[in-house]
Amino acid sequence: MIWRDIESIRTEAPVVHNITNYVVMNTTANAILALGGSPVMAHAAEEVEEMTGLARALVINMGTLSAPWVTAMLKAGKAALGRKIPVVLDPVGSGATRFRTETARRLVQEIRPTVIRGNASEIRSLLHSGPGTKGVDSRHAPDEVLDEARALSRSAGCVVSVSGPVDVIVSGDAVTRIENGHPLMTKVTGMGCTASAVTGVFVAANSSPFQAAAHAMAVMGIVGEMAAERAQGPGSFQLHFLDVLYGLQATDIAGRLKMLVL
Amino acid sequence: MIWRDIESIRTEAPVVHNITNYVVMNTTANAILALGGSPVMAHAAEEVEEMTGLARALVINMGTLSAPWVTAMLKAGKAALGRKIPVVLDPVGSGATRFRTETARRLVQEIRPTVIRGNASEIRSLLHSGPGTKGVDSRHAPDEVLDEARALSRSAGCVVSVSGPVDVIVSGDAVTRIENGHPLMTKVTGMGCTASAVTGVFVAANSSPFQAAAHAMAVMGIVGEMAAERAQGPGSFQLHFLDVLYGLQATDIAGRLKMLVL
Amino acid sequence: MIWRDIESIRTEAPVVHNITNYVVMNTTANAILALGGSPVMAHAAEEVEEMTGLARALVINMGTLSAPWVTAMLKAGKAALGRKIPVVLDPVGSGATRFRTETARRLVQEIRPTVIRGNASEIRSLLHSGPGTKGVDSRHAPDEVLDEARALSRSAGCVVSVSGPVDVIVSGDAVTRIENGHPLMTKVTGMGCTASAVTGVFVAANSSPFQAAAHAMAVMGIVGEMAAERAQGPGSFQLHFLDVLYGLQATDIAGRLKMLVL
Repeated sequence: MIWRDIESIRTEAPVVHNITNYVVMNTTANAILALGGSPVMAHAAEEVEEMTGLARALVINMGTLSAPWVTAMLKAGKAALGRKIPVVLDPVGSGATRFRTETARRLVQEIRPTVIRGNASEIRSLLHSGPGTKGVDSRHAPDEVLDEARALSRSAGCVVSVSGPVDVIVSGDAVTRIENGHPLMTKVTGMGCTASAVTGVFVAANSSPFQAAAHAMAVMGIVGEMAAERAQGPGSFQLHFLDVLYGLQATDIAGRLKMLVL
Repeated sequence: MIWRDIESIRTEAPVVHNITNYVVMNTTANAILALGGSPVMAHAAEEVEEMTGLARALVINMGTLSAPWVTAMLKAGKAALGRKIPVVLDPVGSGATRFRTETARRLVQEIRPTVIRGNASEIRSLLHSGPGTKGVDSRHAPDEVLDEARALSRSAGCVVSVSGPVDVIVSGDAVTRIENGHPLMTKVTGMGCTASAVTGVFVAANSSPFQAAAHAMAVMGIVGEMAAERAQGPGSFQLHFLDVLYGLQATDIAGRLKMLVL
Repeated sequence: MIWRDIESIRTEAPVVHNITNYVVMNTTANAILALGGSPVMAHAAEEVEEMTGLARALVINMGTLSAPWVTAMLKAGKAALGRKIPVVLDPVGSGATRFRTETARRLVQEIRPTVIRGNASEIRSLLHSGPGTKGVDSRHAPDEVLDEARALSRSAGCVVSVSGPVDVIVSGDAVTRIENGHPLMTKVTGMGCTASAVTGVFVAANSSPFQAAAHAMAVMGIVGEMAAERAQGPGSFQLHFLDVLYGLQATDIAGRLKMLVL
């Protein structure tokens, strides 16, 4: 089923509109291209609604947040909601500052994202007021946050995808766990953001956001493992990540997938 | 003649001022450096006129457009016009949204660029009102757009450089076709933007914008071919692209050039 | 002593808050990660004070300067000053335009940075009004600027770290010279910005800013040499730079260090 999504992506090259952060724009555009999608990056209030209308999915990433970008995120998100285009929200750094936490909560409420994808601290911050995250890193193991992910999935009415050593994807009561991945992925900036962008491509190709979110994390983990095996460090890892993603075959997935649907 | 330009660039390291998009800033700065130029990236209204005055060429790229950047583009472009510094305009995504199409047309009219470099859809959008482009991709083969390029070259009084499987460079009635390049170049973000930046370096080094634009596209295509032969995918392609561009020799050009001056 | 800093960085993963430029955000975040630190990039006036409060060092880099970013730099810098968090200022392009020179001088005066790290032209511009720099390149050899660095160190009450073929780090009368490095480093964009980011990680780990600034430049130079030996050009250099930095060992430093404490 993952492979069917990939074939569909490679054939149809779905346009994915990204309102994302400066740090990872290049990285995530290249990941979307390597996977077979068509990335568009645009953030001006003057055009985001029109641009979202040309896309089959919208990815909103709060990485280098500022007020004009929040305006654009809300406009694009509402346009997507109106046209029933799926939206992936990556609440980067939510919990670290009030501005981020409040913006993330507002985006969840007003945009009603299809998938929220973040680390455990970010997911937790959307439910509770509590101590800040350590920047964009996570202090909580994904397993501990399963209850929070379930609560958020129910209250926000969306799929919640929590990345970590084990990825947990939740939709109401349904849970998928993915044990692929490699520690070197934490030594490269923007791998979480790339996971969100890749999730955007999969929600464009698969009408089940729960499946799409799980397939995206499985592909991230498998490609990450294969790239890490070829890499000498975080520099060569990035190169191999794109090369492996571009050349990914059905047998790579079949041979490596560690996905458990609960 | 291409080689003479490259030797001049490597000797003189011309400063090229770029007002470009977030996605490709790093990529294009590195391409300008690898070719032998000196990139400057600056976009504040407070300084763009002064910065353009320090440069031998200005590259304006609409990739991640917003209102404050349009202001800066107009200011810098008019400063370049006043000082007779050549300007390369890359109307990224023109045709996709009204904001982009209107901005691109306004830039053409008020700045009178020396070279407009884009794909077929972007070039077409500057002449006709019509259906949107598919994001920043092109729906039209460059050959089909030759008439439009000629019309734009005449109405805007500039060189028009249309990239695609075959690159077409037009100046009034004069046409140069370049058949170098590799399909892998479409799987890396910002290769079109890199072509515009490289065109900016060549117009700084060669007083004929028509020759400069053609030489730039020839170098892009040849370096792209050589990098693709060494690459395993879009990740390693990017690395080899910069390495090959940095080490490019006269024999590489002589042995590979597929340029037809009509 | 350099090695003790690196061990401490790898163990503690200090959070370094960066307000830096679009061109190098990805590069410097990856360098901080490869060294063992935790990068945070955030620039919104709404949150920079709070974000700086979560960090052990602040890096301010003027690369793609604009008015809203100056506001954020001042806010974050004052928060750091109030909380005694060390600040590294990279006055990119100071001397090239009035806007940059005035902003750099204002930041020095109002933020009182712990370390100013730049090239010779930028350092000189902070003392004298004079001719512009050639973009962000340097026209002056570091040795010639030693007197200026001393004067700036005294007037601004901070460490001054001047990069060039020979790096010079000055604190009042104390001077350290570092002769590591490789010419290929000038063919990659953002190596100076990376030096500033790496300095930010070292000032977070070593309570002596003078030592920290010198250790940072020594590591930059040594890693640059090792990467250049493995590279075929500026593309592969970048990959090896991150890989080497990530895997750096005590023997690499002991075998290559060319540091002279005067």
